[in-house]
Amino acid sequence: MKIARCSDGGAPFWALVDAEGQTLRPIAGAFADWGPALTRAIAAGRADEGREALPLAGPARPLSGVRLLAPVEPVNRVVVAGANYAKHLAADFGLKSPQQPIAFLKAYGALIGANDPIRYPPLTSELDHEVELVVVIGDAPVDPENPLASVLGYTVGNDVSARDLQRSGPTGIGMDLFAAKSQDRSTGVGPWIVTRDEFAAGSPRLGLTLKVNGDVRQDSNTGEMTWDVGQLLRFVEARSSFAGGDIMFTGSPAGVGQGTGLFLQPGDVVEASVEGIGTIKNVVGPKPGA
Amino acid sequence: MKIARCSDGGAPFWALVDAEGQTLRPIAGAFADWGPALTRAIAAGRADEGREALPLAGPARPLSGVRLLAPVEPVNRVVVAGANYAKHLAADFGLKSPQQPIAFLKAYGALIGANDPIRYPPLTSELDHEVELVVVIGDAPVDPENPLASVLGYTVGNDVSARDLQRSGPTGIGMDLFAAKSQDRSTGVGPWIVTRDEFAAGSPRLGLTLKVNGDVRQDSNTGEMTWDVGQLLRFVEARSSFAGGDIMFTGSPAGVGQGTGLFLQPGDVVEASVEGIGTIKNVVGPKPGA
Repeated sequence: MKIARCSDGGAPFWALVDAEGQTLRPIAGAFADWGPALTRAIAAGRADEGREALPLAGPARPLSGVRLLAPVEPVNRVVVAGANYAKHLAADFGLKSPQQPIAFLKAYGALIGANDPIRYPPLTSELDHEVELVVVIGDAPVDPENPLASVLGYTVGNDVSARDLQRSGPTGIGMDLFAAKSQDRSTGVGPWIVTRDEFAAGSPRLGLTLKVNGDVRQDSNTGEMTWDVGQLLRFVEARSSFAGGDIMFTGSPAGVGQGTGLFLQPGDVVEASVEGIGTIKNVVGPKPGA
Repeated sequence: MKIARCSDGGAPFWALVDAEGQTLRPIAGAFADWGPALTRAIAAGRADEGREALPLAGPARPLSGVRLLAPVEPVNRVVVAGANYAKHLAADFGLKSPQQPIAFLKAYGALIGANDPIRYPPLTSELDHEVELVVVIGDAPVDPENPLASVLGYTVGNDVSARDLQRSGPTGIGMDLFAAKSQDRSTGVGPWIVTRDEFAAGSPRLGLTLKVNGDVRQDSNTGEMTWDVGQLLRFVEARSSFAGGDIMFTGSPAGVGQGTGLFLQPGDVVEASVEGIGTIKNVVGPKPGA
């Protein structure tokens, strides 16, 4: 099933999406009211029962009548687990694959929905894209013996990064990942969560691509990750524990502007896709003061 | 005035504290309902009017009847701006003062209140202390021409850090500040917010100390900061904007275990104090599995 977070001008709400019929039905309440129960039903192999137990509120409405938001609530956190595709590190940063991943937090205010514009941030002239598989944690705590049981599903992310600011971190401390990756209204997430029961068991092996103005810039498969979804969840959980509704980015493959010199420019149409989930399409806004 | 976030077993609530009389009066609503207005009143030199406008709810209650929580709501973010005391960098890390500060986000789940135990995290054997002045942003956006106008007040923080994990970050990427500083239930904040009108104009110049079992380990003054509060606020705001209710740590002075080898041990009584604000007193819990 597909679950989106939506706005029709009033308070944001969750909805069960019928992508074929292009309709949605609102789900009553906050993620905490239904997300953990649905996640447990899926983990138990009873996704259908989980869907039937969703507190649907009201009749079907046209999907075109809402704005799709990032499928995460402001009370949750956005974890980014990176350095997870060896070719990206080698080709784009000249780095060898590390002994372990790196994790950090992204500001909630950095997120935008599936079709929102990417704000071109001040201070940068090297705005870059990073298509990523994004994991939606549905239930907590994450069991280190069975981390995928806590996963509600997956969505698509574009971890837009200001590369010059990323390099501006102090010597001896490291990359400035806050300045690079927490810029207001820059990171697309969506279009919806596709629940885990729709994928093969285990860590997903899905194609992921990113196009700029129709040109393919990143084209890889989540099976190329150095650490799979379960390993990343264990890594993060051991350091700072997840809550239901948190999301986790899982790193980006090679092909970004950091390696090619092709940075994002105002007006660029950026499409990030993951197989079996969907596409987010975000247009880069004007440079500040332009 | 002193404003605390409290729990009496039910839902957390904000309260106006009379520290001398050892009582409090609950404030109705969320921070967003009264924090921005109070901050604007203080910025306009009308702190008394701001206090009178607070939506107090119910009679005075004994301060001893509540648990003091970190004075920040889960929907807000915890920004840490570091590398801000030259002696700390030189003596404790062998680093020169950088050209600019470093900022990152701390997980909300890392926070504890003024008298809560410090959870000894797994994976580390080098648990360390960092007393810091913590800024409470009351109103947004932060005006780069007058950043202090957005400050409601100040509180005390102990940015407890796992130093071995801090060094475990991948080569070429940098320190693992997430693993070091977002460990569950480790970072003391409190005991309350002291509003800005109680301090001299400008960035605060206040003594700050940290004691372990009564021994003074850190003893400095916020006037020793490389970048003052206004400069830190401008630095962060230009990269990722604040909301009212967010808090910002401002870096720690020399004297931490990273330099002295004196790391925190189970049972240690850790007292972090800032002049004119108060003291938080947290006891280090047992090692996992001990």
